[in-house]
Amino acid sequence: MTVASLTGELSSFDAGIRSVVMGASGGIGSAFVGQLQASPHVDVVAACSRQKNDTLGPKALPLSFNLDDEETIARAAKDIADRVGKLDLVIVATGVLHQDDVLLPEKTWRSLDATAMERVFRINTIGPALIAKHFLPLLARDRKSVFAALSARVGSIGDNQLGGWHAYRASKAALNMLIRNFAIELERRHPQGIVVGLHPGTTDTALSKPFQSHVPKGKLFSPAFVADRLLRVIDGLTPEDSGLVYDWDGKVIPF
Amino acid sequence: MTVASLTGELSSFDAGIRSVVMGASGGIGSAFVGQLQASPHVDVVAACSRQKNDTLGPKALPLSFNLDDEETIARAAKDIADRVGKLDLVIVATGVLHQDDVLLPEKTWRSLDATAMERVFRINTIGPALIAKHFLPLLARDRKSVFAALSARVGSIGDNQLGGWHAYRASKAALNMLIRNFAIELERRHPQGIVVGLHPGTTDTALSKPFQSHVPKGKLFSPAFVADRLLRVIDGLTPEDSGLVYDWDGKVIPF
Repeated sequence: MTVASLTGELSSFDAGIRSVVMGASGGIGSAFVGQLQASPHVDVVAACSRQKNDTLGPKALPLSFNLDDEETIARAAKDIADRVGKLDLVIVATGVLHQDDVLLPEKTWRSLDATAMERVFRINTIGPALIAKHFLPLLARDRKSVFAALSARVGSIGDNQLGGWHAYRASKAALNMLIRNFAIELERRHPQGIVVGLHPGTTDTALSKPFQSHVPKGKLFSPAFVADRLLRVIDGLTPEDSGLVYDWDGKVIPF
Repeated sequence: MTVASLTGELSSFDAGIRSVVMGASGGIGSAFVGQLQASPHVDVVAACSRQKNDTLGPKALPLSFNLDDEETIARAAKDIADRVGKLDLVIVATGVLHQDDVLLPEKTWRSLDATAMERVFRINTIGPALIAKHFLPLLARDRKSVFAALSARVGSIGDNQLGGWHAYRASKAALNMLIRNFAIELERRHPQGIVVGLHPGTTDTALSKPFQSHVPKGKLFSPAFVADRLLRVIDGLTPEDSGLVYDWDGKVIPF
């Protein structure tokens, strides 16, 4: 792959890009919505979030869904198919690392908790799988189209030197497996289709908030920077890149 | 690592091995129990299964536990600690691929089901994590000791060429991440401790039954063969091998 040099250019896609952002109200998700709306190549941004956001621009199609409820994901997919047609780009920007006091990334095996682990798998692995189930069939088959889900470098088993964060790491490794699986299945029907995972780097959002003090200077990215970099990565993708996980700089992250 | 040439020799461990098999009534689990009992180097085999099995030999300590109930795992660990003391070898031989008609490995994303996926993660990933939580602290620290969990080659993301079996593959990739994580955490307190995943090959058990027609001739192993081969692999492990996944032949499986 090559990483595009112009922000939001997205020139590798056919003009009139029809896009979806799932998790559009999150830190990175809302930055994606903003950048996609600003791109002259983009016609539609279906912005799906728990609470429908009606304050977005004229290209936006705001919808609501609940990651816990497949029926709502199916309904959003159907609404989009009816109103927009086939899709060029689907971005899954959902995910959880901590949740108030009930969900904390484990520093040791002593903190493992079945209910918390179930919750993490539900949000980080099963949720994106259900989105894939309903949105992969909507990808346009006659041109480049991309399904990209936010993964994380800490989901790399081979790159894991520090340990800890058991459930989060495991849920992202599981997601990486599904990304690879979906890439294999998509390729059989749609040779121009691409499924990838994306590592945004540590971004200044609610997800990373409790851990930002450990981030080296200059390595805590703004959501706008990350969305810009990841859109460049997406723009540079070709079908040979399908099934892999890329960081914000376009480098492949090992499994 | 080197693979030992003698069945059940286990000579790399200190004599008087105290072992645990979790999932002792399963196809591979019961073969492990049989072989460990037959080894002159083994003193105790705590055989933990859903239904306590009182028909085992004199070295066996039969106990019951339920993978879904952490309290029962904690109780089994405490019983073993009280009656046996520190452990040399813990084998986790639990796992699910299919379950009657409610759980079937998915051939396509169209078959993804949140409840079925939750069940697969619960059994294949969260269950072994809970066992690790309660049994890793029991590993003897003054000598070689091993925590080994059955993983699967189809849990390798990098080795995945065929796709499908979404939940099962993802659950084993997640387990491989936890194995690596636990290896990192164990190494800090216990440099002689080893945590590995093991791929048994396709074994003639209830788990593989519906898929055996696809197995090439000579590649469907008996549980006794598999337990023998995996014990040889375990015997050959050194601390440098910790955190990796090995097949029955002693080869590393990529993440």
